[in-house]
Amino acid sequence: MPLTIITNEPPSELGRGLVRLRGEVAYDGTDFSGWGIQVSQRTVQGEVQSAISTAFRLHAPVTVTVAGRTDAGVHARGQVIHVDIPESAIHDLSKTLYSINALLPDDIRMHALTVAPEGFDARFSAIARRYSYAIADGPFDPLMRHFVVAHWRRLDEHAMNEASEKLLGLHDFTSFCKKTDFGTAIRTLQEFSWVRTDVGVTAHLKADAFCHSMVRSLIGALVPVGEHKQPVTFPREVLERRTRGSDVVTMPGHGLVLEQVYYPEDSQLAARAEETRALRDISEVDPL
Amino acid sequence: MPLTIITNEPPSELGRGLVRLRGEVAYDGTDFSGWGIQVSQRTVQGEVQSAISTAFRLHAPVTVTVAGRTDAGVHARGQVIHVDIPESAIHDLSKTLYSINALLPDDIRMHALTVAPEGFDARFSAIARRYSYAIADGPFDPLMRHFVVAHWRRLDEHAMNEASEKLLGLHDFTSFCKKTDFGTAIRTLQEFSWVRTDVGVTAHLKADAFCHSMVRSLIGALVPVGEHKQPVTFPREVLERRTRGSDVVTMPGHGLVLEQVYYPEDSQLAARAEETRALRDISEVDPL
Repeated sequence: MPLTIITNEPPSELGRGLVRLRGEVAYDGTDFSGWGIQVSQRTVQGEVQSAISTAFRLHAPVTVTVAGRTDAGVHARGQVIHVDIPESAIHDLSKTLYSINALLPDDIRMHALTVAPEGFDARFSAIARRYSYAIADGPFDPLMRHFVVAHWRRLDEHAMNEASEKLLGLHDFTSFCKKTDFGTAIRTLQEFSWVRTDVGVTAHLKADAFCHSMVRSLIGALVPVGEHKQPVTFPREVLERRTRGSDVVTMPGHGLVLEQVYYPEDSQLAARAEETRALRDISEVDPL
Repeated sequence: MPLTIITNEPPSELGRGLVRLRGEVAYDGTDFSGWGIQVSQRTVQGEVQSAISTAFRLHAPVTVTVAGRTDAGVHARGQVIHVDIPESAIHDLSKTLYSINALLPDDIRMHALTVAPEGFDARFSAIARRYSYAIADGPFDPLMRHFVVAHWRRLDEHAMNEASEKLLGLHDFTSFCKKTDFGTAIRTLQEFSWVRTDVGVTAHLKADAFCHSMVRSLIGALVPVGEHKQPVTFPREVLERRTRGSDVVTMPGHGLVLEQVYYPEDSQLAARAEETRALRDISEVDPL
């Protein structure tokens, strides 16, 4: 098991007089420099924090914690956040949610805002994340160009499914992760399958967590299999060599959507957060 | 039957040394001022004509004829065009199609370019057009905001289907058409049905042709039925009064997609074009 690493994360214990809220957020990542707030860049976090501060009439900026940080161009349908708000500022949450949506730009919607159950932490309590990745390998629908990656060769989704299946389970995914100085890339890939859709082929991936660029690198290893340029054993061989290589492309961000984040039952939230915080390392701060 | 009206349309007979080509085009209407070319406005027609002229290395601009003119913000997945090109400029059409797509902006794709069958006219040979219109009446997916109209009340798609069915058949649709000085609004509505989807409710409409703003006005008459603010007989009552009223809203353009254009068998193309040209009037020049 990886060593326990001390990170510079703020403690998640709730401060005095604060109430932790849980929010569900969806966004079109096209016009954002990713989730994480940056000076003089338009970010999802920046917009969400600003709308929340204004809607609750707070005098100081709030910090929102997110389940899955997303890169530039990456979208989310089922992103989950938490934020700690002074109890005195909370009145009617459904009215506040309405205000937040009125304040948010058109490319972000907040779908729910509720008092979080005891022990809830959007990031550390999560037990799994599910992503989709869409590739158009036939006539390209220009209406979908911000959400689907164009590919000029037809892909064999059966070969891709056969190859993807060989990656399922608990593995060291170092070959598919951006290098970090800390920790491991040991993850459990619970689902990795391809379906043919109206727009081409779509991959569905679910894991306890994904390290940075993992989904896009996994897709990059599967595309040559779909083209019959690599055998169905290729992605597994890449996995087993435990090192990144130039034969695996990191696919563009705009085909990727964070679809859903999974949490345990309420009674397990605090235990799960403690466990994750102890075992996980800094590389998981950026699960994409 | 309506009178034959002489229009200022150019004759569709093919000029000497010209070959008529048939093209299939899809576009995201968001950033266009509609199909029809306008000075100093970004239009689909302007972009398509420019790409075709360049790809065929023509020395003069070409004029493209379209099956269904679309308004600002309206999209197309199955738009059909024709264009007459000097025989001497035509070599390998599949290579030219590749060049056209390289020249077109990302929000337009041309999916096919072939020599048109004898007698083909993209507009006058068409026997039917099919459109879809999408409304989100639940949680709004920001990824779909350019293609789906947000509606804050839940809609009853069963009531809407019951009401839509009463409009099917051959009728004078004056109540749903923008006033023109010429001609009639007599059309055959072949399909008008609602289905619940991932994003909300979607209407599918098919008719021999639609007069200007007809789809958006029909949808505008159905929404209050879905809200239970009007009875299921309301749209039919609007139809029968044969006059536009302030109780029918013209819905926004961005929920609308031209999905498909239908043509008769090749042997019927010329006869159909002649018939349409004789019977149809200027009001049909702008079927949306």
